Amino acid sequence: MASTPPSHGQPHRTPPQQHGHPHVHPVPRHPRLDPLADRYAARTHGMKSSEIRALFSVVSRPEVVSLAGGMPAVTALPLDAVGSMIGELVSGMGAQTLQYGSGQGDPRLRERICDVMALEGITDASPSDVVVTVGSQQGLDLVTRVFVDPGDVVLAEGPSYVGALGVFQAAEARVRHVPMDDDGLIPEALEQVLLECRANGDRVKFLYTVPNYHNPAGVTLSEPRRQAIVDIADRYDLLVIEDNPYGLLGFDHEPHRALRARNAQRVVYLGSFSKTFSPGLRVGWVLAPLAVREKLVLATEAQVLCPPSLTQYAVARYLDTQPWREQIKLFTELYRERRDATLESLDALMPPGTTWTRPDGGFYVWLKLPHGLDSKLMQPRAVGAHVAYVPGIGFYADGSGREYMRLSYCYPEPDQIREGVRRLARVIEVELDLHSTFDAVDTGTFRAVGRPGTAPGTIVGPASSDRIEDTHP
Amino acid sequence: MASTPPSHGQPHRTPPQQHGHPHVHPVPRHPRLDPLADRYAARTHGMKSSEIRALFSVVSRPEVVSLAGGMPAVTALPLDAVGSMIGELVSGMGAQTLQYGSGQGDPRLRERICDVMALEGITDASPSDVVVTVGSQQGLDLVTRVFVDPGDVVLAEGPSYVGALGVFQAAEARVRHVPMDDDGLIPEALEQVLLECRANGDRVKFLYTVPNYHNPAGVTLSEPRRQAIVDIADRYDLLVIEDNPYGLLGFDHEPHRALRARNAQRVVYLGSFSKTFSPGLRVGWVLAPLAVREKLVLATEAQVLCPPSLTQYAVARYLDTQPWREQIKLFTELYRERRDATLESLDALMPPGTTWTRPDGGFYVWLKLPHGLDSKLMQPRAVGAHVAYVPGIGFYADGSGREYMRLSYCYPEPDQIREGVRRLARVIEVELDLHSTFDAVDTGTFRAVGRPGTAPGTIVGPASSDRIEDTHP
Repeated sequence: MASTPPSHGQPHRTPPQQHGHPHVHPVPRHPRLDPLADRYAARTHGMKSSEIRALFSVVSRPEVVSLAGGMPAVTALPLDAVGSMIGELVSGMGAQTLQYGSGQGDPRLRERICDVMALEGITDASPSDVVVTVGSQQGLDLVTRVFVDPGDVVLAEGPSYVGALGVFQAAEARVRHVPMDDDGLIPEALEQVLLECRANGDRVKFLYTVPNYHNPAGVTLSEPRRQAIVDIADRYDLLVIEDNPYGLLGFDHEPHRALRARNAQRVVYLGSFSKTFSPGLRVGWVLAPLAVREKLVLATEAQVLCPPSLTQYAVARYLDTQPWREQIKLFTELYRERRDATLESLDALMPPGTTWTRPDGGFYVWLKLPHGLDSKLMQPRAVGAHVAYVPGIGFYADGSGREYMRLSYCYPEPDQIREGVRRLARVIEVELDLHSTFDAVDTGTFRAVGRPGTAPGTIVGPASSDRIEDTHP
Repeated sequence: MASTPPSHGQPHRTPPQQHGHPHVHPVPRHPRLDPLADRYAARTHGMKSSEIRALFSVVSRPEVVSLAGGMPAVTALPLDAVGSMIGELVSGMGAQTLQYGSGQGDPRLRERICDVMALEGITDASPSDVVVTVGSQQGLDLVTRVFVDPGDVVLAEGPSYVGALGVFQAAEARVRHVPMDDDGLIPEALEQVLLECRANGDRVKFLYTVPNYHNPAGVTLSEPRRQAIVDIADRYDLLVIEDNPYGLLGFDHEPHRALRARNAQRVVYLGSFSKTFSPGLRVGWVLAPLAVREKLVLATEAQVLCPPSLTQYAVARYLDTQPWREQIKLFTELYRERRDATLESLDALMPPGTTWTRPDGGFYVWLKLPHGLDSKLMQPRAVGAHVAYVPGIGFYADGSGREYMRLSYCYPEPDQIREGVRRLARVIEVELDLHSTFDAVDTGTFRAVGRPGTAPGTIVGPASSDRIEDTHP
């Protein structure tokens, strides 16, 4: 048995346990075995590291072009002005900004939030219906805690936001995906899933949907479908969680009218300042009917007591004193340029059989590989070629999505994007060559999406995306 | 049926529903009935508004002396220096401070946190074992989510921190209180409760304890008992959650050695900057063994993605550049003065039969009313007399504690404290007079605590505090 080298400047300590030496509190033979393994809560079994977190160390290497992260371009903010503003909030109002606040959130910020939501047609919201949260992630977690018991069914688009799937897994919900196409969630598919759930006796607690510039699919729910979804919610007594972090980041349109603007009683709305101002402040919100809002406040008090005061005052002051609408316009121009660089490069460089969505807002393109390729298996080769993406399986609760990947254009500069797409195209070509050596590639069995000249309305998700995955142990 | 008066400047709208008028989506007859009442999660049944929140509107009235809130004296901070420091963090480092960070928290802050814990004898903590949280409240919520299934038993002092009870109720845990006296949690009582739980087949997931300057009891776990508690944890395979927001706020001593310093594997440590710097930043942490830490990171990613970057950078920079040890000394001198004002006034003014603890650190005095009085029933009269406190029942999961109240001296100035105690003493006297009119007051049946000249070691909690309350529906 090799002895441990002595620590520099410290006496050599005897190892705490030696074979045959009796000890009152024996150190386990295999110290990596978890002595607490038998006492974790059932919900921990569904917790797993996301595909995105696994990429963190890769993404931070300077030679890698990351099309993986969803980090907004915060350096486009007027940092000096924002810094002065926040500094003055502490110097001049420290008694408030450094002190505890209310669990529901600062009343002045909740008023400003109602102004922001009015841009999407929500004109009947009262500040008393708003709960400020630590990012909209906490909003979704609170809504889930308030509604979901283990085994309950949650409906979500296929693919769906990875952070939402993490919340649903931690709540031991069963996630059932509903297919999308270029016009977003398909109402007929939703209705069919609801009928099947009814036949199964499933307790469907809500539909979780990202109607605008979907993460990761990059598509937007069309206007006619918005009304159709709300009508289905009425007919089937369905609660809808409308998650809308990107709604003000459209490139070509005025903001779409929110689902919440069409139905105040059946839609719980989640908003965020992470994409319109700063994610480092972690300020989001929930707009909910009174009875739900009351439960959300109790749940957030148990979770964090209250959101940080300083960051809430910072957002409220920013909305009061800075040209925030013009700043959003500046952000969208910057993201449009990056979207253009992405789509132009994809059009120019991707091998046949590769397809992708064409977002008109937000951060993401959803790309489908030629038939037979697997984005997860391909990932090490991509990282070796210094380009990163998020494999599609992270966006499904049921293990599907292996032929997909998410490309983010929000953070890298256009030239980096072009270089990243060039590297990615090369990786795919090499993969195709390897693949065709062993197997004939059938490029005719998948349904193409978004490729210029392709008919719209085709399915974004894999054929298996409407299967139920029971994440309940 | 009275018609609704028209809104000023708006056309008079027809009420949306009239008797006998068919409607596709009828508005409920009783709009205050919650249409979603049948679909909330089971955990919501245990959620209720805390005694403290109910006091918020009262406390904010300027004529009321509030001995209710636990707000630190943040205006004693050097606000100009802190404001400049935070402003510069945004202006100069906006790309980091306004951006997403890691779920586990900023590595530099985690290093500084290890420096802070070293003051309490925790010298073996690695930054990689620390998880930064949105206040230690989130830390406790995460630990509870990782360990507690519905029906599991959590041990907690009686009385216990109201915010912890809220977490345990939301997790559908059964809370079993363990009695304290002037030397804190009673080891023999803990052992007895553990034996009873073992006999009952209860799954005891952990002991939750606030060893220093207890909230609300104001007492501190003695040195010999610290070792006794850790020994019991070893013998009974018990996990201990050590919640220590006040540990550096002792008036007369060097910091007590943490339970975690005595046992790294059985103690999960919760820390906070809310009382040593600012609660409005909501920065706390958990120090946990590796396997637990990994689960905590997954749980916090599902809950908030990551803690706010700006507030983390603010705390790390504050610890790096400001005289934070001297600031803590300044805080403790200020709180000692207020503690003295409280105890002197209580000694001088309280009617016989009233007893209280004598804290040597922290924020709180725990007061017991003369036999027969009820702090909750007395509360309206106290508010009428312009003094506020928190009734004792908020600090028990089992409905006991009605004869107790928590008095906080952290926020009001000494003169306000004296006036508040004077008003409170008068309210108690009037209550006693009323009471004696109807019933003979027996001042001999309670066990006195802390009254000058009283023997130490008597029970802080009510006799019923070791009953199990099953909060599982």
